[in-house]
Amino acid sequence: MSDSDCIFCKIVAGEIPCAKLYEDDSALAFLDIGPVAEGHALLIPKTHYVTLDEMPADAAADLLRSLPAVGGAVAEALGCEGFNVLQNNGAVAQQLVGHVHFHIIPRSVGDEFHFNWPAGAYEPGRMDEIAEAVRSRLA
Amino acid sequence: MSDSDCIFCKIVAGEIPCAKLYEDDSALAFLDIGPVAEGHALLIPKTHYVTLDEMPADAAADLLRSLPAVGGAVAEALGCEGFNVLQNNGAVAQQLVGHVHFHIIPRSVGDEFHFNWPAGAYEPGRMDEIAEAVRSRLA
Repeated sequence: MSDSDCIFCKIVAGEIPCAKLYEDDSALAFLDIGPVAEGHALLIPKTHYVTLDEMPADAAADLLRSLPAVGGAVAEALGCEGFNVLQNNGAVAQQLVGHVHFHIIPRSVGDEFHFNWPAGAYEPGRMDEIAEAVRSRLA
Repeated sequence: MSDSDCIFCKIVAGEIPCAKLYEDDSALAFLDIGPVAEGHALLIPKTHYVTLDEMPADAAADLLRSLPAVGGAVAEALGCEGFNVLQNNGAVAQQLVGHVHFHIIPRSVGDEFHFNWPAGAYEPGRMDEIAEAVRSRLA
């Protein structure tokens, strides 16, 4: 349920303080101490899961039912025109703490957080191949 | 419930085809036709919401309970070591289609999708000010 070496589990347990935004039986939201924008928040499950694909469907539902309200409250409190939700799984995806966390990043014109969008296209037939490979793993 | 000018509502209604990955009463997942990585997928609610903060808690729970399984299946099907989940609200946050969608982006070493991480720090007292402003909107 918790990992004694995990900094987020220690925050859940109250062993490390946080600037708490929201809490319920399943979820905790608090401000990131190294914000990429003012108000940058984290929403985490109280139970320790390293990556999102480890979470049972019910646990994800319990965690993420609060994401709209927390995201909206953060953006409104900061007077922002929008926000990104970002969740990283694995070092290759820039996951730094091994406990599932959803970043809520308030956005304003001219701010510092950016991502590129190197949109490509599929060769004929390739989409269907990939879709079939994904569907076979969900069946 | 649906918007007649919305491309994602038309996909939900079957008026525009998609490479479908997953579907239930609340959610639809399909491949993005302009992928930033092979297997780049979208998970959307069948009901039309422009931004995440418009979604009731139950609708978010119903949508996002499938996010772990779809994300894991996409990453596994592509043989990737990780994946990002990204959801954009507002033009300032690079939202291009006005219907809530969660990007699932499979990641591999040396791939093309990138984001920066301009982590800053708070002046003394500022975190508490912001946390209080957010909490007051969630009370």
